[in-house]
Amino acid sequence: MLPKKVLVTEVGTRDGLQSEPRFVPTADKIALVDALTRAGIRRIEVSSFVSPRAVPQMADAAQVMAGIERPPGLVAACLVPNANGARRAAEAKVDEMVAFVSATESHNRANVNRTIDESLAGFAEVAAIARDHAVRVHGAIAVAFGCPFEGDVPFAQVVAIVGRLHALGVRELTLGDTTGMATPPIATGLCKAIQDAHPDMHVTLHFHNTRGVGLANVMAGLQAGIDSYESSLGGLGGCPFAPGATGNVCTEDLVYLLHEMGIETGVDLAKLVAAAKRVEALVGHPVPGQVMKAGPRLRRYPMDAVRKAVG
Amino acid sequence: MLPKKVLVTEVGTRDGLQSEPRFVPTADKIALVDALTRAGIRRIEVSSFVSPRAVPQMADAAQVMAGIERPPGLVAACLVPNANGARRAAEAKVDEMVAFVSATESHNRANVNRTIDESLAGFAEVAAIARDHAVRVHGAIAVAFGCPFEGDVPFAQVVAIVGRLHALGVRELTLGDTTGMATPPIATGLCKAIQDAHPDMHVTLHFHNTRGVGLANVMAGLQAGIDSYESSLGGLGGCPFAPGATGNVCTEDLVYLLHEMGIETGVDLAKLVAAAKRVEALVGHPVPGQVMKAGPRLRRYPMDAVRKAVG
Repeated sequence: MLPKKVLVTEVGTRDGLQSEPRFVPTADKIALVDALTRAGIRRIEVSSFVSPRAVPQMADAAQVMAGIERPPGLVAACLVPNANGARRAAEAKVDEMVAFVSATESHNRANVNRTIDESLAGFAEVAAIARDHAVRVHGAIAVAFGCPFEGDVPFAQVVAIVGRLHALGVRELTLGDTTGMATPPIATGLCKAIQDAHPDMHVTLHFHNTRGVGLANVMAGLQAGIDSYESSLGGLGGCPFAPGATGNVCTEDLVYLLHEMGIETGVDLAKLVAAAKRVEALVGHPVPGQVMKAGPRLRRYPMDAVRKAVG
Repeated sequence: MLPKKVLVTEVGTRDGLQSEPRFVPTADKIALVDALTRAGIRRIEVSSFVSPRAVPQMADAAQVMAGIERPPGLVAACLVPNANGARRAAEAKVDEMVAFVSATESHNRANVNRTIDESLAGFAEVAAIARDHAVRVHGAIAVAFGCPFEGDVPFAQVVAIVGRLHALGVRELTLGDTTGMATPPIATGLCKAIQDAHPDMHVTLHFHNTRGVGLANVMAGLQAGIDSYESSLGGLGGCPFAPGATGNVCTEDLVYLLHEMGIETGVDLAKLVAAAKRVEALVGHPVPGQVMKAGPRLRRYPMDAVRKAVG
């Protein structure tokens, strides 16, 4: 049974812009977030309270948070890597802190130079700070569908980490397909394993389109009953490993698919496409989104528009 | 119940190269077809016996057919628009003639300047010539999932044309998503309508990725039990209407998806990717294939390969 309604979370403003070499000016970031909000997106990963030395693209997290519109119903989320980030995020009045850990020791080490245990201890500190400020905590597990260093990740290994997050009070969890290793059977199997072990954990899926099957994975997720997905405007992002490869699933292509399947998102696709079209200028290169190039499905052409293509 | 085995047909050599402005030299076309054959592809739309004035890219159809390897089990198919093309194709000893008609009068008129009735009369002539030469006939219906001039195409309208092809003896039929208007519910609904009306018609699906949902549509097709798909190496092709938009679903991304779902294709993905990598040089521009850029799913990276991307 497919969900009737899906929450679409925009992560391009964080996960996308973070991997761009060019620093996008604060005012442009604010305009982008506001355009997404006005298109009806109700959860946005606005920025990241990470060290500005590590990720200079996100150095203006507090200014962006201070500048964006905050209509009722919008969840303005920010990534926080540690207690220091959590304090800065609380000060910036985020609605939600996203704290993360990798599914494998190798990736956790490469990403934040800590063991998984150390990351989970940090997670507990973040959760305590969030609680003190009455801010929601959302967990994220990177490389949940496969690790570029270790290969396949056993479902039980992910479920064990989910259990530890659950024990820390987390009930909102994103499974990240960090390098595009998810496939429909892996998505189905991992969702089922988590649903069986922790039926009260609300799972969000964050797929990358690195091997072209991002939306095929979403189809598998929908069939597993998952009603929450993360994606990136225009497909902004890329893959940190494979140059030229695509990163995040594209938000407007995802919304197009969901609407065509009769699933509500509350998002205005035309407004979303208009916002996506502005992204290429912001980052200075083409982005992989398809609907932004092809236009609406029922777009009509005059009969002389056809480029002769017999067959 | 998903099919255990799927036939993957390569159409890039025809549908792909036909829409390239550059004429690909005959020897390169032959090498490309042979590379596909050696990768295990068992049905290839090699070329088109269309007027060389209308489609100069396919003017060397007979030479390509004469030059390619013809191992047992390979179906070397060619597109034929009319009786004249069918006679040329028979002379070139094709294994199969693909004859086509559009699902809408507008598209049929724009494509071949005929009514659907006129195209079907031509189809009967083609079928007779094929029968005389003991060559298989494969029908194809363009814009079956939506028309760029007329919009949505009622299932009953497509089924009526399927019925007329059936009456002409056609039992192999491709449904073409000519401008990328298919969606999972349309794919599911149209397949079911045809299966109900003509259970002995073997249906092949030819999706375009113009709006990013090509492989999501394949997922719907698989669930409808369809075991035959057409696609294009590297995603070669493009859309005749929307500049910059993607055309055919990419063969190696499709094969990757099928293999990951445990479905046999008989294709060697590594050889297919090697062939796809040569395509960009042939056509002189990047192609949209993803697996060819990202590499195998279980490709391992050294731990210092990670571009710092905290989160």
